[in-house]
Amino acid sequence: MTTTVAAYAAPSAKAPLERTTIERRTVGAHDIMIDIKFAGICHSDIHQAREGWGEALFPMVPGHEIAGVVSEVGSGVTKYKVGDRVGVGCLVDSCRTCENCKAGLEQHCTNSSYGATYNAIGRDGTPNHGGYSQKLVVDENYAVRIPEGLALDVAAPLLCAGITTYSPLKHWGAGPGKKVAIVGLGGLGHMGVKIAHALGAEVTVLSQSLRKKDDGLKLGADHYYATSDEKTFQELAGTFDLILSTVSAPLDFGGYLGLLKTGGALVNVGAPEEPIALNLFSLIGGNKTLAGSMIGGIAETQEMLDFCAEHGLGSEIELIEASRINEAYERVLASDVRYRFVIDAATI
Amino acid sequence: MTTTVAAYAAPSAKAPLERTTIERRTVGAHDIMIDIKFAGICHSDIHQAREGWGEALFPMVPGHEIAGVVSEVGSGVTKYKVGDRVGVGCLVDSCRTCENCKAGLEQHCTNSSYGATYNAIGRDGTPNHGGYSQKLVVDENYAVRIPEGLALDVAAPLLCAGITTYSPLKHWGAGPGKKVAIVGLGGLGHMGVKIAHALGAEVTVLSQSLRKKDDGLKLGADHYYATSDEKTFQELAGTFDLILSTVSAPLDFGGYLGLLKTGGALVNVGAPEEPIALNLFSLIGGNKTLAGSMIGGIAETQEMLDFCAEHGLGSEIELIEASRINEAYERVLASDVRYRFVIDAATI
Repeated sequence: MTTTVAAYAAPSAKAPLERTTIERRTVGAHDIMIDIKFAGICHSDIHQAREGWGEALFPMVPGHEIAGVVSEVGSGVTKYKVGDRVGVGCLVDSCRTCENCKAGLEQHCTNSSYGATYNAIGRDGTPNHGGYSQKLVVDENYAVRIPEGLALDVAAPLLCAGITTYSPLKHWGAGPGKKVAIVGLGGLGHMGVKIAHALGAEVTVLSQSLRKKDDGLKLGADHYYATSDEKTFQELAGTFDLILSTVSAPLDFGGYLGLLKTGGALVNVGAPEEPIALNLFSLIGGNKTLAGSMIGGIAETQEMLDFCAEHGLGSEIELIEASRINEAYERVLASDVRYRFVIDAATI
Repeated sequence: MTTTVAAYAAPSAKAPLERTTIERRTVGAHDIMIDIKFAGICHSDIHQAREGWGEALFPMVPGHEIAGVVSEVGSGVTKYKVGDRVGVGCLVDSCRTCENCKAGLEQHCTNSSYGATYNAIGRDGTPNHGGYSQKLVVDENYAVRIPEGLALDVAAPLLCAGITTYSPLKHWGAGPGKKVAIVGLGGLGHMGVKIAHALGAEVTVLSQSLRKKDDGLKLGADHYYATSDEKTFQELAGTFDLILSTVSAPLDFGGYLGLLKTGGALVNVGAPEEPIALNLFSLIGGNKTLAGSMIGGIAETQEMLDFCAEHGLGSEIELIEASRINEAYERVLASDVRYRFVIDAATI
């Protein structure tokens, strides 16, 4: 029997989100039901709810930064029990048989179109709905454990903003002795600073202005520069082993590649909607790399949460009632949030 | 006392190369004099002799694929003796003190503007001149040993075409179990095929047409596809761990990135003069990498020569008399060479 739960949904791409009800599927043998406690608001929720990334499915319940407590488990569930603190990120399913799924890269599953937490049709043929709701039923293999010591509200954004920055920082070697720059100090960027610092790297924030400099230094940055100042690009030429760009505004990539050491990498996790112009000599001179990275797999998401708990890293959040979601969207678009809105699901 | 030697030089960017004489410096304590036997013609010789890459120094003696025999050694030389078979590539000097020089990445020396084999002013204030000449004086630290068993004529092109492909193939993990594509089957590409095959990778050539297919398979390719055929991009989607592009024509980078597996890398060694357009989603989806690579350091060039000798790899060459250099340039520009012109220095 399905469960009717309250949720906030966008009825169409042009309409504000409104309170409604949705059905959650019967808890299957390998499913858990989660009482959602908190859900982060990610910029990509807005991209999708407003069809900024192309045609989308409506009504849409966004939300892929979900933290809650297990309230029911299926007969075959082995990982979780009622009362466990768990999170769900951008994935609720994948094929489990392709090379990527086997390698723990479920986010790059080559077979499934049904795995996104929302804005997708699930295996059972019904729409997947996200975290702006009271409850969620999900296969236990696509939930992760939120360690004790990490409060659920500040943990929620880690399920997207945390893993999206942790995965490339680990993969590209951020750590002791390495100079790492984080471009942009928003929802992703502020987690990038915290994680890169905790990994032991020397961290520089490259932000448009010095407006958030005090915050950046408190979050763990060693240095803070304004990219609107041309001198920044001269002064920091050849400085960084790794640059992580979290912004979706089109950058002057040649300029940023010039800030890398020989053999350095510029990794993008926030992508402009339009193609960028790139002079390949800016990669050849200095054996440089431009790379992309998309969230992370389930096992790595668990590793990230464990790392954050160990180092006491949560997101900096502004907790809101669900009735303020539409207002929060406008503020996200205006970059007016320090640094993540999180919905208190008790208010849905 | 300087030595006067015959050479072929471009008197200006608009004029054909002609026979002339140049002075080689007195053999210093750490110098060796090389009797040049063979010099390869690289496409970048033409770019520079015709100012395709910007303002250049004239008269210019091109040539950075140099093979010869040591004919004189300075009092402090320890690595070579008269009669040794040696090569010189794109570098004849560097600062030796910067981080890159110390790391064996002399090609990325951050201090020197004097290190290029030609089209540069040397430390002594006189112009560097390249391999289209009878003799060369060079610091012993910028020469490499050509192993026995590797004929000098087929070894000459290895000093640029060999190291330019070997270095990224090694760095990006070409080897057993890896699927590697080489884009373009010219002077660089044909060495890329030979080296990737010898490294144990499964090699695919991606060429505009199937015109050189028989050659490609003989050189060591396992597969050969025409990129003018749209089906190629569908059939090979998600196939390669590594793609090495050796062409300087502007590619459809989105299409080529689509041929990579998750986590794969597309490395460019041949660069278009114009900026390319790139949609960053083609890197983010699949955690992909676009990288550049420029020749290789001195120690790695020696490693490459030793590897080529061990595996019996020389360049496929067309040996010409020096009087045919201008004709050869036109044929290189028309892609009418299989696969490298090499000048017989005895005819200079």
